[in-house]
Amino acid sequence: MNIGDSPLLTDLYQLNMMQAYLANGLSGTAAFELFVRRLPPGRSFMMAAGLEQVVAWLEGFRFAPDELAYLERTGRFDAKMLDYLADLRFTGDVDAMPEGTVFFPNEPILRVVAPLPLAQLLESRLINLMQFQSLIATKAARVMLAAPGKVLVDFGFRRAHGAEAGLMAARASYVAGFAGTATVLAEMLWGIPIYGTMAHSYVQAHEDEIAAFESFARARPDNLTLLIDTYDPVAAAKKVVALAPKLARDGITIQSVRIDSGDLVALSRGVRQVLDEGGCRDVKVFVSGGLDEESIAAIVKAGAPIAGYGVGTALTTSQDQPVLDIVYKLQEYDGVGRRKRSADKQTFPGRKQVWRRHAADGTLAGDVISLVGDRQEGETLLAPVMRDGVGVRHDPSLAEIRARAAAGLAALPAALRDVSTPGAYPVAIGEALTALTAEVDRRIAAHG
Amino acid sequence: MNIGDSPLLTDLYQLNMMQAYLANGLSGTAAFELFVRRLPPGRSFMMAAGLEQVVAWLEGFRFAPDELAYLERTGRFDAKMLDYLADLRFTGDVDAMPEGTVFFPNEPILRVVAPLPLAQLLESRLINLMQFQSLIATKAARVMLAAPGKVLVDFGFRRAHGAEAGLMAARASYVAGFAGTATVLAEMLWGIPIYGTMAHSYVQAHEDEIAAFESFARARPDNLTLLIDTYDPVAAAKKVVALAPKLARDGITIQSVRIDSGDLVALSRGVRQVLDEGGCRDVKVFVSGGLDEESIAAIVKAGAPIAGYGVGTALTTSQDQPVLDIVYKLQEYDGVGRRKRSADKQTFPGRKQVWRRHAADGTLAGDVISLVGDRQEGETLLAPVMRDGVGVRHDPSLAEIRARAAAGLAALPAALRDVSTPGAYPVAIGEALTALTAEVDRRIAAHG
Repeated sequence: MNIGDSPLLTDLYQLNMMQAYLANGLSGTAAFELFVRRLPPGRSFMMAAGLEQVVAWLEGFRFAPDELAYLERTGRFDAKMLDYLADLRFTGDVDAMPEGTVFFPNEPILRVVAPLPLAQLLESRLINLMQFQSLIATKAARVMLAAPGKVLVDFGFRRAHGAEAGLMAARASYVAGFAGTATVLAEMLWGIPIYGTMAHSYVQAHEDEIAAFESFARARPDNLTLLIDTYDPVAAAKKVVALAPKLARDGITIQSVRIDSGDLVALSRGVRQVLDEGGCRDVKVFVSGGLDEESIAAIVKAGAPIAGYGVGTALTTSQDQPVLDIVYKLQEYDGVGRRKRSADKQTFPGRKQVWRRHAADGTLAGDVISLVGDRQEGETLLAPVMRDGVGVRHDPSLAEIRARAAAGLAALPAALRDVSTPGAYPVAIGEALTALTAEVDRRIAAHG
Repeated sequence: MNIGDSPLLTDLYQLNMMQAYLANGLSGTAAFELFVRRLPPGRSFMMAAGLEQVVAWLEGFRFAPDELAYLERTGRFDAKMLDYLADLRFTGDVDAMPEGTVFFPNEPILRVVAPLPLAQLLESRLINLMQFQSLIATKAARVMLAAPGKVLVDFGFRRAHGAEAGLMAARASYVAGFAGTATVLAEMLWGIPIYGTMAHSYVQAHEDEIAAFESFARARPDNLTLLIDTYDPVAAAKKVVALAPKLARDGITIQSVRIDSGDLVALSRGVRQVLDEGGCRDVKVFVSGGLDEESIAAIVKAGAPIAGYGVGTALTTSQDQPVLDIVYKLQEYDGVGRRKRSADKQTFPGRKQVWRRHAADGTLAGDVISLVGDRQEGETLLAPVMRDGVGVRHDPSLAEIRARAAAGLAALPAALRDVSTPGAYPVAIGEALTALTAEVDRRIAAHG
């Protein structure tokens, strides 16, 4: 079993509610929508990612014999429910924004229409899958905005929150435009380009630094990058200059050097000068070490001679904002709009669509959220993904998803492009949605 | 394949270095240690967790045929390395602090002694596994300190960073003393108690709230908790009071009510008063909704009549500090101490042990880090876990681990118990370690 596939990746209350729904015959059709209630502080937009994993999970959704045996053993559930679970498959409809789409608060990014007990059961893992990749794609998109034209690589597997997080972060940052990742399994699973140099321990395992550089170069001559900050980067750059002609005689080219600590602006300048004066003008400087979009923006602004950045922990944990306020809410049951009115957690009822307008130059000009069918100006963002439990379109390739993400970033208004100051974007509520909301409120007041 | 078991959960540079090590005959014995360089801001201590998963991963460590085929297909690696990988098993030694141990910066929490190419390859996943559970156990320990005697439950699966993160957070918070989790699979895998009530959608799926309460109660009468904040908690409490005698006649007891939004201090008081005046003195008030150790400490201090707390997102993402500055560093190769001296990233060389002293009343009184064999006063914290790739002691049960964690929290000095103000703890460096560090520096200077 791949642990991520288990339908028991759910909260106990989902199973409790299922038994109550089944006992009370509440198995009518429900529409749930997934949306972000508020942008994380400092963010101007979000980017959707994770839909491919959601569809794969729904297509394979079933309880395995050992899972059913466990549920029976707990004594919590009646025979009717256990029988229902044994046969349960995902038979519903899904509409969603394609991966790589830029989106804003209150806009549904995914809708599930299915029998209530089934649609409810999916909530926990569905949120879990979508929120993380969307969180990381958004973070990576900000790094892209901070370093236009630079080579950006995900270095963050080790401090991601577990194996799945590390892999999904590699995928989500690639969706947003990163050149690749250091995580090897991401290449095997998804064909994402992988990057890698050497670690400090390699240098430390040798008695001196230049011997370490030479032995590594001869063993791994392709795409050769040398790590030069184990002791002193500028001194190490001199060793690189001394070594380069010797390696060149054997057909080995040093492609780049990496600095992983210290004042990266000053060190990159010092190293660049040593390399240039030593005839190594083609050796690029690559940096890493505790970087995020704000520190990278400052380094770029300072004009440091750096060709690429490895971004680790800050990326794969979305360190400054590790949480999306994302929810999956019942919007309609048995053909009637539903609404939650708890303090600060109000939702809009009904099945919704998002329309997006662009200015003449292609820039995003404003969105409208309204009910499906309440046609507005602009393109619609949610499209059919599954019908009756079956995928209804080809899965887009990562290349297509990356193209959509790139187009979305290119179309961001200027006010949304500055990673240090968040900007606002106009999202309006359509008339039909406003009317339904008022109608649901009147009904709740009458029954309250 | 369970994705978490893949040896390709590693950075490409680990494989690059391995090929260079093998090409250069650098397969002598290496000692790597895992340690936290600095406490996250605001933290006073850390708690170790995740060792059981590390041992299981090392015991099962091997490259599967499809993984070897992929590596060969990339064309990056030579036949010697591919042969080496095909036969590779973990054959090394591991010493570690038991799970549930309180620890401090620079203290090794785990040491691997193995041939250099193997020990190096493990780095990425080993950090990934240990840092996350330790991060969450630490966060959960802080919640324990904030709410002594309360029932604390992990509600955070959905916003954890993926499936593994959600599961490991359930385990790590249970290690630290939580009563249980909402995540069902955690009970199946580890026997962790699970808790669950109902969601707002259950109430919304009914035309009125009291009908929802009654239908749920009859379908799920055991450990019955009703969620009372879908519309108005105090009004809902009156419905609970009205419903209780009717359910009691059928032998159904309402155990508690849950409030998930709003001013929890004011609402819990209002609800408590309605319940008490309505003859429901035994119905407990449970709360949830965006809670962390600081908000819980404030609620406890205000004397709110609350018996338990569900802690979600803030717990499972360690939201205020989602990252541990934890590293796995080469400390010795071929019998000689090694040291990294990069700016702000210096390490102490050699194989180390931690000695801990307690005051007469049992309170932690200070630690000393020194070389293994440089005997100090107090108990030693690292113990043998694996020898030649095989576990050398029984795996402690979760009950034993929880007892160790509870004893560690009980022994914390007063200055380390306040979750709003971090306190300092004395950790000294032993004489033998100081001497070795100076010796390694002299050697680096001579070869630099």
